[in-house]
Amino acid sequence: MIRDRNDTIAAIATPLGEAGISLIRVSGAKAIEVVGSIFQGKSSLFEALSHTIHHGRIIHPQDGLVDDVLVSVFRKPHSYTGDDGVEISCHGSYYVSRKVLETVIGAGARMADPGEFTQRAFLNGKMDLTQAEAVADLIHSKTALAHRASIEQLNGRLSATIKNLRKKLIDLCSLLELELDFAEEGIGLADKNTTESSFAHAITEIEELIQSYSYGKLIRDGVKVVLVGSPNVGKSSLLNVLLRENRAIVSDIPGTTRDVIEEAVLIDGIEFRLADTAGLRSTADVVEQEGVRRSKDQIDSADLILLIIDSSMPQDDTFSIVLDILKEHAEKVLLVLNKIDIRSPEFEYRWFEGWDCISISCLTKEGIGDLTKKLTQRVLSSFDSNSSSVKIQSDRHKQLLKMTQESVISAQAAFQNKLGNELVAIDLRVALNYLGEIIGLTTPEDILNNIFSRFCVGK
Amino acid sequence: MIRDRNDTIAAIATPLGEAGISLIRVSGAKAIEVVGSIFQGKSSLFEALSHTIHHGRIIHPQDGLVDDVLVSVFRKPHSYTGDDGVEISCHGSYYVSRKVLETVIGAGARMADPGEFTQRAFLNGKMDLTQAEAVADLIHSKTALAHRASIEQLNGRLSATIKNLRKKLIDLCSLLELELDFAEEGIGLADKNTTESSFAHAITEIEELIQSYSYGKLIRDGVKVVLVGSPNVGKSSLLNVLLRENRAIVSDIPGTTRDVIEEAVLIDGIEFRLADTAGLRSTADVVEQEGVRRSKDQIDSADLILLIIDSSMPQDDTFSIVLDILKEHAEKVLLVLNKIDIRSPEFEYRWFEGWDCISISCLTKEGIGDLTKKLTQRVLSSFDSNSSSVKIQSDRHKQLLKMTQESVISAQAAFQNKLGNELVAIDLRVALNYLGEIIGLTTPEDILNNIFSRFCVGK
Repeated sequence: MIRDRNDTIAAIATPLGEAGISLIRVSGAKAIEVVGSIFQGKSSLFEALSHTIHHGRIIHPQDGLVDDVLVSVFRKPHSYTGDDGVEISCHGSYYVSRKVLETVIGAGARMADPGEFTQRAFLNGKMDLTQAEAVADLIHSKTALAHRASIEQLNGRLSATIKNLRKKLIDLCSLLELELDFAEEGIGLADKNTTESSFAHAITEIEELIQSYSYGKLIRDGVKVVLVGSPNVGKSSLLNVLLRENRAIVSDIPGTTRDVIEEAVLIDGIEFRLADTAGLRSTADVVEQEGVRRSKDQIDSADLILLIIDSSMPQDDTFSIVLDILKEHAEKVLLVLNKIDIRSPEFEYRWFEGWDCISISCLTKEGIGDLTKKLTQRVLSSFDSNSSSVKIQSDRHKQLLKMTQESVISAQAAFQNKLGNELVAIDLRVALNYLGEIIGLTTPEDILNNIFSRFCVGK
Repeated sequence: MIRDRNDTIAAIATPLGEAGISLIRVSGAKAIEVVGSIFQGKSSLFEALSHTIHHGRIIHPQDGLVDDVLVSVFRKPHSYTGDDGVEISCHGSYYVSRKVLETVIGAGARMADPGEFTQRAFLNGKMDLTQAEAVADLIHSKTALAHRASIEQLNGRLSATIKNLRKKLIDLCSLLELELDFAEEGIGLADKNTTESSFAHAITEIEELIQSYSYGKLIRDGVKVVLVGSPNVGKSSLLNVLLRENRAIVSDIPGTTRDVIEEAVLIDGIEFRLADTAGLRSTADVVEQEGVRRSKDQIDSADLILLIIDSSMPQDDTFSIVLDILKEHAEKVLLVLNKIDIRSPEFEYRWFEGWDCISISCLTKEGIGDLTKKLTQRVLSSFDSNSSSVKIQSDRHKQLLKMTQESVISAQAAFQNKLGNELVAIDLRVALNYLGEIIGLTTPEDILNNIFSRFCVGK
């Protein structure tokens, strides 16, 4: 349920820990009154102008002086939430920041729910829903590309695209509905060809947005790279070299399978999540078969497969398995010939002719730079390299765009089959509703709650 | 070395982590110029008034938009450091806050050293040294009492006491020196009795401050409670009960011996650090003797000893050891008779007659409340319960006060032995120098650096 918007809410907005400063954020109709009642400074907060900062002390009614603080005052509507707001900047200690919060709560505020400040900003019309969602993505962003995508969404690039699309559909729908009024007189307002082309354009535009999701998802969640090969070809060595040579980043993606070692590194602003697998074997042994089956699951869920081959041996008995994988996952595979420093003269290159192939040595580091370059190229080239086009990042947006598209296609069919403008308009209205749900115009309350509950407290 | 104070310094001032907000703090002559050059808002920062907040964007010269931010402007001397200052409030993400810092550094600031903001505040005369030290203590404070002690020190209570003491010694010293000018004429200005009493008062006052250290130290570092007893008397059970019944707190006191389990709990605002020990035994076994020796080390370093006895048995062969400990550490021991729910009728109470003793059962929880009450009473009653008197918390202050006291005693002796006012005055000047070192008037640079290096970056 969306909680009472007239309440005054409060939360610690900075990470918990010991540091110079913690911020306690207070918002709501009585924010200034609440903080003003526990604040002792040169001047009272009650008369303070918006966007001014006041030095003073927070006093707990029973326990006395809590801390020397700076208090920032924001008058509605010129605040993050659109309501009156106060931020208390205190010393960055667990004890002090909790005690300040406790004092604020005691003075009449209540603990904010996760995301409640941003939810109020949305409900007060300070931002639309895609912008609110971008706040959470921005906070979780770990790479330059993820940061870029969410800051652009926060600044309304996706909103603008969706609004523009809605406008075109509204125009089309209005025209078709207007025509209804003149239908009895046999006057046609909409040119058939123009209408056809409007439908086709809208469907293409939606399709492009849907397609951009796979790129947006890679940006947000990282690229899953699975290392595959026979035992002792150097999978673990390559994993270690890639980790050492690149900046390792902390990955906290929920649902990551923990029985597979997965390490995240940053290469050219893209997060690569590297997973080692059990070695491939031709084997009748049941336990080993299970390992192979798991490797195959990994391969299926991979965005990229590094297929590693030991070039120090003429060939091994897994070449047939390797070739099967190559054929089945051709578009995802990058072939890596390892141990080229001790390459066997009998190594049969002809097996791998025509495949995208890099020669490396984990020992001498030869070719590692080429490999990482290739990794980013493969990610970027598999998508529209026009980075200026809008990319969607959220599964919610993708699903709603798909439903929008289906309704527009249905409207198009009704139009082509001359089922009458009423029916065409109904389908278009459904499509408009889905688009409106993306930016928060027509979003059901439970969906809204679900979105904001993913936020941290204090945002 | 104290670094160039004309530099503009910057640091992330909030804990690292994902949250609503991170703060980047910038201070120095060019703080407003530096941030103004990467800030895009409705109005320029260059003309901004002190204590005003400005909404806008941080723009990286190459990478473009970094974040939507709020920027607070502080004009000297009305800032924490006393120099011009800017605080940038950005989204609380690792990536974003680091990128904002990087952009600020790129625009001409340099990374701040730990404690450098507070060091500048001290050097610019915004606070004295005891207040600066209180900032670090306040940030690390984990309990109500530790918080109270450091916030009072931050607000200058200790400074006022030291300054008052200095004033008295300066007055005394001036009078004695003035008398020198009239010595040839045989005119005495200082009444001998008044002077004697001034010395005595000063020495008593310093002694009280030195004595307050043991209390201040307990407040700051917590009370070390060691659980001692024969095997199977229920030491671990009692430890667990105390942990469960009270709020456990995270203790990160450096130097805590890690081979002894030590757990911190909060009882009535006091931190108790509970340490279990190996059971006491009368034994000739070398390994066991080593365990007993360690237990004895623990006992020696304890602030309080819980000596636990199993009342379900008539007596055991460690009673003699127990009685030895009781005699040797009488003032620190609290006797705990455990298992009173299955007390043996033959248990010999007479052994423990006259000792401070509590009967408990870890199983039924009987007596546990009395025990925790007793713990806090023992801590508080062992000190001047007048909580309004100033307590020193720092070993540095204690050492300087001891040296001050020695010099005053030496001056007193010189006066009593009529060695001449010159010599008395020299000793008093030395004492004044030590007092000045406490509040930072005469503190050597290496000591200053040592003090501020204990701070976190961003404070």
